[in-house]
Amino acid sequence: MSLQLVIGDKRYSSWSLRAALALELTGAPYTEQLILLNRPDTQALILKHSPTAKVPLLKTADGPVWDSLAIAEYLAESYPQAHLWPRERYARARARSACAEMHSAFVALRTHMPMDLQRNEALAEVPEAVRADIQRVCNLWLECRELFGAEGPYLFGSVSLVDAFFAPVACRLRSYKVELPAVAEDYVNTIYQWPAFQKWYQAALEE
Amino acid sequence: MSLQLVIGDKRYSSWSLRAALALELTGAPYTEQLILLNRPDTQALILKHSPTAKVPLLKTADGPVWDSLAIAEYLAESYPQAHLWPRERYARARARSACAEMHSAFVALRTHMPMDLQRNEALAEVPEAVRADIQRVCNLWLECRELFGAEGPYLFGSVSLVDAFFAPVACRLRSYKVELPAVAEDYVNTIYQWPAFQKWYQAALEE
Repeated sequence: MSLQLVIGDKRYSSWSLRAALALELTGAPYTEQLILLNRPDTQALILKHSPTAKVPLLKTADGPVWDSLAIAEYLAESYPQAHLWPRERYARARARSACAEMHSAFVALRTHMPMDLQRNEALAEVPEAVRADIQRVCNLWLECRELFGAEGPYLFGSVSLVDAFFAPVACRLRSYKVELPAVAEDYVNTIYQWPAFQKWYQAALEE
Repeated sequence: MSLQLVIGDKRYSSWSLRAALALELTGAPYTEQLILLNRPDTQALILKHSPTAKVPLLKTADGPVWDSLAIAEYLAESYPQAHLWPRERYARARARSACAEMHSAFVALRTHMPMDLQRNEALAEVPEAVRADIQRVCNLWLECRELFGAEGPYLFGSVSLVDAFFAPVACRLRSYKVELPAVAEDYVNTIYQWPAFQKWYQAALEE
């Protein structure tokens, strides 16, 4: 099966990063097609691949699959031996709860602290709604580690799609220099030491 | 397995409706716990069940599962004989693309035309961004029907989680009296004739 992932700038496109990390978890070979965001022709270029005008999109032998979460599920089904989700049913359900929460919520965090992998500067002022989102993220990480990932270092113990979904949040917390409780700080370190993340990160620094 | 669904007002809570329709697809017995939204004690009441302070949440024998999409996947896994997703792999991938797109996008439509099952009145003026969302919804429905649901009447032929996710959009289009192309109008009629939807709708009219 030939796989190609259509992505935005590695520096900025947090949803592309999630899909790329999901692909890395499968171990399958794939190619990338990068479309620069925020250019006059960006939308026209993306529309050639996707009716939603958004990245990421995965081109598969079957046809296109879009949205990071649908791509994640497609890969989990297509590479069952890679165990992209936790193996135990309830852990898997909670892993999906965490990813779905990331997929639809944390609007203040995403708006005020957009991913910029070259940034290394705190916000002048952190709005209250962003503080609340950060608090919830830290609590969510703690819940996952306590209930399902006690052996660490990832949220459900060994690396999974949940880490692909929260990696861009770890980046934001680091690049906006947010002070964190110890468990969250450890988890951010874990993400930065993840080889698949490091590959993307180094490319983003050179964009 | 004893299942209880924590929901908001049937008249207003579109995400609760999606989870309830997903449950109906399984055929499993369940009970409802309704928490009225937009009251001074709403948040405190929901927090007793869910750390996200949001509905819906499904209480299972294993523990709580939240977010409509994670609930849908949990039910699809727990009741495989009910075939909540389309059976063919690529159809299933595109079904998930459609649900994930609904889960994260259509912000203008959701903001300007919130679900209100007792409403029967057009907006005085439909903002351009809402028109664009409606156009995309209609195109998405057409794509699904053409590629995967030619025999109809649901988006992937027989009823699936995709219909659970788009039922609240069908309600909005009808209750805000939006003029639609024939395929979309037919699909709205299909949703209104779906017995599981009718059960919720009749309860919402009496709230």
